Amino acid sequence: MSNHTPIPIVTFLPSGRTIPGCDGAHVLQLAQEAGVSIPHTCNGAGTCGKCTVVLRGSASPPTEVELRILSPAQIAAGVRLACQTVPQGDLTVLIHDHAAASILSEGVSVRFRFSPYVRKVPVSLAAPSLDDQSADLERLLKALGLPNRPPQVDLSLLRALPSCIRTPDGAFARGKAEATAVLAGNRLIAVEPGNTLTSCHGIAFDIGTTTVVGYLLDLNTGTRLAVASDLNPQANYGADVITRITHTMQEPNGLQRLRDLIVAKLNSLTEQVCSEAGISPADVYDFAVAGNTTMLHLLLGLEVRNIALAPYIPVVSQPLELPAAEVGLHAHPQARAFLLPSIASYVGADIVADLLVARIHREPRPCLLIDFGTNGEIVLGSKDRVVACATAAGPCFEGGNISCGMRAASGAVSSVHLHDDDLHIETIAGAPPKGICGTGLIDAVALMVAAGVIDETGRILDPDEASDLPQPLRRRIRPGDRGLKFVICDPGELGAPAEIAVTQRDVRELQNAKGAVMAGIRVLCSELGIAAEEIDRVFLAGAFGNYIRPESAMAVGLIPELPLKRVRSLGNAAGTGAQMALLSVSERRRAERLLRTVQYVELSGDPRFPMEYAEAMYFPARR
Amino acid sequence: MSNHTPIPIVTFLPSGRTIPGCDGAHVLQLAQEAGVSIPHTCNGAGTCGKCTVVLRGSASPPTEVELRILSPAQIAAGVRLACQTVPQGDLTVLIHDHAAASILSEGVSVRFRFSPYVRKVPVSLAAPSLDDQSADLERLLKALGLPNRPPQVDLSLLRALPSCIRTPDGAFARGKAEATAVLAGNRLIAVEPGNTLTSCHGIAFDIGTTTVVGYLLDLNTGTRLAVASDLNPQANYGADVITRITHTMQEPNGLQRLRDLIVAKLNSLTEQVCSEAGISPADVYDFAVAGNTTMLHLLLGLEVRNIALAPYIPVVSQPLELPAAEVGLHAHPQARAFLLPSIASYVGADIVADLLVARIHREPRPCLLIDFGTNGEIVLGSKDRVVACATAAGPCFEGGNISCGMRAASGAVSSVHLHDDDLHIETIAGAPPKGICGTGLIDAVALMVAAGVIDETGRILDPDEASDLPQPLRRRIRPGDRGLKFVICDPGELGAPAEIAVTQRDVRELQNAKGAVMAGIRVLCSELGIAAEEIDRVFLAGAFGNYIRPESAMAVGLIPELPLKRVRSLGNAAGTGAQMALLSVSERRRAERLLRTVQYVELSGDPRFPMEYAEAMYFPARR
Repeated sequence: MSNHTPIPIVTFLPSGRTIPGCDGAHVLQLAQEAGVSIPHTCNGAGTCGKCTVVLRGSASPPTEVELRILSPAQIAAGVRLACQTVPQGDLTVLIHDHAAASILSEGVSVRFRFSPYVRKVPVSLAAPSLDDQSADLERLLKALGLPNRPPQVDLSLLRALPSCIRTPDGAFARGKAEATAVLAGNRLIAVEPGNTLTSCHGIAFDIGTTTVVGYLLDLNTGTRLAVASDLNPQANYGADVITRITHTMQEPNGLQRLRDLIVAKLNSLTEQVCSEAGISPADVYDFAVAGNTTMLHLLLGLEVRNIALAPYIPVVSQPLELPAAEVGLHAHPQARAFLLPSIASYVGADIVADLLVARIHREPRPCLLIDFGTNGEIVLGSKDRVVACATAAGPCFEGGNISCGMRAASGAVSSVHLHDDDLHIETIAGAPPKGICGTGLIDAVALMVAAGVIDETGRILDPDEASDLPQPLRRRIRPGDRGLKFVICDPGELGAPAEIAVTQRDVRELQNAKGAVMAGIRVLCSELGIAAEEIDRVFLAGAFGNYIRPESAMAVGLIPELPLKRVRSLGNAAGTGAQMALLSVSERRRAERLLRTVQYVELSGDPRFPMEYAEAMYFPARR
Repeated sequence: MSNHTPIPIVTFLPSGRTIPGCDGAHVLQLAQEAGVSIPHTCNGAGTCGKCTVVLRGSASPPTEVELRILSPAQIAAGVRLACQTVPQGDLTVLIHDHAAASILSEGVSVRFRFSPYVRKVPVSLAAPSLDDQSADLERLLKALGLPNRPPQVDLSLLRALPSCIRTPDGAFARGKAEATAVLAGNRLIAVEPGNTLTSCHGIAFDIGTTTVVGYLLDLNTGTRLAVASDLNPQANYGADVITRITHTMQEPNGLQRLRDLIVAKLNSLTEQVCSEAGISPADVYDFAVAGNTTMLHLLLGLEVRNIALAPYIPVVSQPLELPAAEVGLHAHPQARAFLLPSIASYVGADIVADLLVARIHREPRPCLLIDFGTNGEIVLGSKDRVVACATAAGPCFEGGNISCGMRAASGAVSSVHLHDDDLHIETIAGAPPKGICGTGLIDAVALMVAAGVIDETGRILDPDEASDLPQPLRRRIRPGDRGLKFVICDPGELGAPAEIAVTQRDVRELQNAKGAVMAGIRVLCSELGIAAEEIDRVFLAGAFGNYIRPESAMAVGLIPELPLKRVRSLGNAAGTGAQMALLSVSERRRAERLLRTVQYVELSGDPRFPMEYAEAMYFPARR
């Protein structure tokens, strides 16, 4: 038996190529021998920092170069520089595919290029001398490798720079200065003494009409460190965008008030996620914000009146990159804020964020995206062409205008299905039933359609008419204040404090909403010249879209009847898309292209819409 | 005799080509027929506005298109669009040569490309409709011809935009909106209702250690509307830059105080020139600022300590383009401010501005530029190579440290020359002599050298030694408190209240100063490997440089002995250069290139300097 140390085997992923390690050869050399490409520009000099790989196995400890270039978080995650690392046993080397990142959010995983807009770069500055009298800024730019293409520079940086790179007595410590530059795209926004690489954070916000969510991300790694959400405080001035816009038109300080409310809420969410992650808001250098057009206009204090009045014109659609302080956000004084672009007044940046996740503009066959909320925004298309529209679905998907309706909160009936000839309900958090939320309503109406409690026109049948109904269902049809109702839950049942029923008016409310959505889908199909059956995939976005049961949605005619496997929920895709914009300049550019790619169809001016709407009000025939 | 209307003759300048006008053909067509090129991009559609020419003669009245695109000032000056104008008699058409402009300042005329950084563009926006729901900003960008390359946009513009293009009731008046966009380079900084083209102004500042000058220019025409100057109020905290820097190091709020003083002074000069021209500071959209490195650092509130301490490092050399409000300047809220680049701590943006005027970097043979002040900045070179240095000349050129010295103000002896064997003096404004200023001192010492009052070492001869002196001069050599003095003016002479004399110490002071300047020139010659006699032209800049008599400067050895016609005064070239930067993006780029072209030679670290200095202390041999 040989007692030689076994030669380590190095495996490169994703190619799977292997090569035996040899004395002292570092991973970059081995990769070159194996014919595997690892990006680098300094050929192993340890200066470019581009040959990052992820290692699993036994390797030499991090060198000084690596400790300077990589963050502790990166090193802890196995990130190393290939030119600095020598195998000390079998080793798997994962080579970044264009630094691809993926984000996992409520079951959805999207891969994208990891290229945060804001990045920190550690620099080492040689002390000036009579032979090298470069100005402080030029010295810094040279160390950054930007001597001839000076980026835009903030005045605050110039004011801080001299003391940042010098000791209090005005000298360079030990003949050089360690500092960290903060770059936002081509703009040099800050410089900090020492190596502060590990502290580089950003926050993505999804501003919904009802709910606001903030995601704190590490801009070095893409890791999500904390999430916080709260109700949008503007709701006190109106549950929907139109009411809020009206407020700004009727109250002299209405616009300012709504702006102040949302800015304060974003700042308190910032405090909350930072506190949870143990960092300071001053460590936050970038924001990415998604939300509908009105929400983003209100955040910036822009006139919203013309969004509400025909022909529905926003102030701005294009993406905006602004100083966060100008937006009013409390973070690093030079932090930036990116607002995703919107497509139209009623197909906003939230839908653009959805599309970053759904990517239907890259699909070979037509895909449908629906974001359910007070408005139902609909996008249909493929790589050839993408069209979008917005329908005024009304608040019923969020429990609004429904007799026993409530938001999807504890105690809401969220699921209704048939079991042993009677219906069976489930509530959120298993709490005693207090009301019915959007998903429960659609389940209930789907059951009513399927069982024959209501006919195709939406009329609740008199118990006498519904003689073929199972008795347990038939007895739930009872007279109400205004016509018949279908009782979902009697008082006392499962601990319910009061009766929960679907009234004839509730059914009409849902018919209006689902009819509007389906009519929108049909107009878009007509625009693309396809039949609804040709839709290859359906993406459901928004909190409601995340919980809806596709079979119920089809049963009531809210979405086209398609094989169930073609329907997929994206969860809160707007929040996911905002995070992608925070972590990726490529995704920001993609969002900007989407603004020009997606063609908005204004339904209020479209002669097809009223006809489709009248037809879509009916329920599908019983199956 | 024929009574036909004579066919009008159209003459194009500068080519001189002529062509007969024919029925209805506009000037652009005639130019094309004559083979004369007039720049345009819309081929006569009247949309590009690029075919501007200057007409003299009889032509059709301005069209609606012209009234929209051209300012009344332009039309009044004969500027017309070639595609809109039909000859109605003999006509001379001056075609702009790349829209060249020239600036005349104290006798110096420099031609450069007229291309102001800030420009106004009138736009006409079609009213939105359900068929054209572009956002307000996108509508504006489209009207500007920038639909696909959105410029950077300020938030304040977005806030103002909707009401700017709408009537108070929210509609577009008569189906369209007239507005004026204000562009600063690629940035859309403001939009104004209606056509405000005629009101577009900028201010150039030259911040000297002693004096500050502001020039108000019309950015449409380049016309100078007003000039104002005042003393630099920082002078209360030190006459020279070193004293002021020391103040910032010794007083906790010293930097802030000096900054506040200069900002307040620039604002009061702004008020002054605007009031003189009958405009509001809110009509000022751009600033260009020249000044030495310390002055510009103090204006921005940047640390100046390291400028004073070896190795003399400024915070920034490169040009800066900042929001004027951030600098503290009161003007249009979105006005910009451009600070010219500097070459080194002691060769500042004032010298870069000088070089925009002198252009020695384009000369085939070596040229010398000297800007006289407390420091003498020296630039030597040609298109092949340019080198620069700074010498601590001391304040004697401004009358400082001279026993009877004073600034070049009323009553200062500014000229001294020999007349009928005695000296003859002139004072500024012809007022009774109160003291002697820099030019007077140099004249006096030149005379003393030429006549033999002092020897080559600078020693004032005893009257007994100077026996070959004419008696009137000899009697002016008298004993003073510390050695001999040479009396320029006795009390009572020309109404002088007291004696004015040049003392032995005054001569030594001048020797130090002129020795330093000449040593600097010699080191630069040595750097370029040329002899001083090879210098093709000498440019003298700065107020002192404007008034100095070249023959006296040569006689005392302040500048090399060369044929007099090679010496030229540029006047206040720094102020002229600042105005060029205000009126021309090309000149801004040239300034930025100069920063990289000109090589700074640090005299304090140069072994050649002390030797040259010792030698240059002597006076030239008597001629």
